[in-house]
Amino acid sequence: MIQHTTIRLAPYRRGFHLITREVLRAINDWPEQGIFHLFIKHTSAGLCINENADPTVLEDFESIFNHVVPENLPFIKHDIEGPDDMPAHIKSSMVGSSISIPIVDGRPDLGTWQGIYLCEFRNHATSRTLVASIYS
Amino acid sequence: MIQHTTIRLAPYRRGFHLITREVLRAINDWPEQGIFHLFIKHTSAGLCINENADPTVLEDFESIFNHVVPENLPFIKHDIEGPDDMPAHIKSSMVGSSISIPIVDGRPDLGTWQGIYLCEFRNHATSRTLVASIYS
Amino acid sequence: MIQHTTIRLAPYRRGFHLITREVLRAINDWPEQGIFHLFIKHTSAGLCINENADPTVLEDFESIFNHVVPENLPFIKHDIEGPDDMPAHIKSSMVGSSISIPIVDGRPDLGTWQGIYLCEFRNHATSRTLVASIYS
Repeated sequence: MIQHTTIRLAPYRRGFHLITREVLRAINDWPEQGIFHLFIKHTSAGLCINENADPTVLEDFESIFNHVVPENLPFIKHDIEGPDDMPAHIKSSMVGSSISIPIVDGRPDLGTWQGIYLCEFRNHATSRTLVASIYS
Repeated sequence: MIQHTTIRLAPYRRGFHLITREVLRAINDWPEQGIFHLFIKHTSAGLCINENADPTVLEDFESIFNHVVPENLPFIKHDIEGPDDMPAHIKSSMVGSSISIPIVDGRPDLGTWQGIYLCEFRNHATSRTLVASIYS
Repeated sequence: MIQHTTIRLAPYRRGFHLITREVLRAINDWPEQGIFHLFIKHTSAGLCINENADPTVLEDFESIFNHVVPENLPFIKHDIEGPDDMPAHIKSSMVGSSISIPIVDGRPDLGTWQGIYLCEFRNHATSRTLVASIYS
C-alpha cells in the first residue's frame, strides 16, 4: 500500500536547512513497518540526511559545496539565470532528488544524529514542493 | 506488487543525456499510485534527475563534473582502463546508481523541469542495461 | 510486505570497503521479486555501489574523495571533532545514506562488476549500524 502526501515547504534562503519536523508532522499516519520516501520536484534544490545538532555544520555544508562547485567557472554556458543557477543543478544531482528511510516500530528509523536537510542552492528561491510517500 | 522491466539503452557517447522518453515508453502499464525505481547495472555510468529543457545544461554537467573530478590525478593507481575510467567510477557514486520517483494519478510525478539523465562517464561505452521497477 | 533486518557491521578503518557478502548473508530469505533497500544510521559514513574486483579502485576512491573534499579548509567552523569530521559529513551526503537494488529471480540483481561499499569517512570510527529492508 502506498500513500502520497504533497508538502509545500515554507521558502528557505540559500543554504542547508533541517526540515525533519516540518516534513514528519505532515504525515498523519505511520504504519508499524514500511519505507518513507521523500522526493523534491525541483532541479536546483536537493534532499539529503545529515547531522541534526550543530548549526555550524549547516554553514559548513554551504561553504564546502560552494568550494567544490564554484560559481563563475569560465567554461559555463548556461548562465542566463545567474551564476548560482548552473552550480545549483550540479549540487542537486550530487546530493540527490530523494531520500528513503526505513519505518520501524511506527516511526522513521533515523540514527540519533540524523536529520532531513533541504539543500536550497538558489539565491532567490520560492517555496519548494515535496512528495512524501509511505509504503507499507 | 512489484514488476521489473529490463531496459537496454541505445549506446550514448560520453556526457549527460535525457532518457526520460526512452525509459518511460518501456513501461506498458502504470498503476494509479506507486513508486517508480530505476537502477543501472554498471559502475562507470549513473542516473540522476535534472533540468529537461536547455541542452547547454547537459554540456555544463559534463564540463563541471570533469572539473570536480579531473582525469590524470597523479596519485591514481587504477589506470589500466584509461584516464577516464577511475573518474567515471567516482562520478557514478556521486550521482548514484538509482533514482526513484513517486507515481501519482497514473504517471511518474516529475516536476515541470525534471527529466531523467543517463550519466555516461566512459569515453567509449557500449549499451547500458537498466532495471525499471514499479511497486504499487 | 516489508521486512527489516538490523546489521551491525564490524568496525572498518577509514576508507571504502566491499561489504556485499557481509550484508547479503544477513538476509535469510529472499523473495522472488522485490526491492532491497539498505540504510546507514550515521552521518559521517555512507553507502554506494561500485566496482567489486580491483582493490586499487577502493584506494583511489579514498584519495580522490580526499582531493575533492579536502581537510583543513580555512573557512570550516565545525572542527571540534577533528579535521576529518566535517569532510566526512559532506562526503556522506555526496554518496548518500541508502542504496536500493531490484530483487529479480530471488537475488539482488547487481551487475557483474557491482558491489556494495561501506564508505567510512572517519579516522577512528566504531561499528556502524545498517537497516536492510526487503519489500516484495
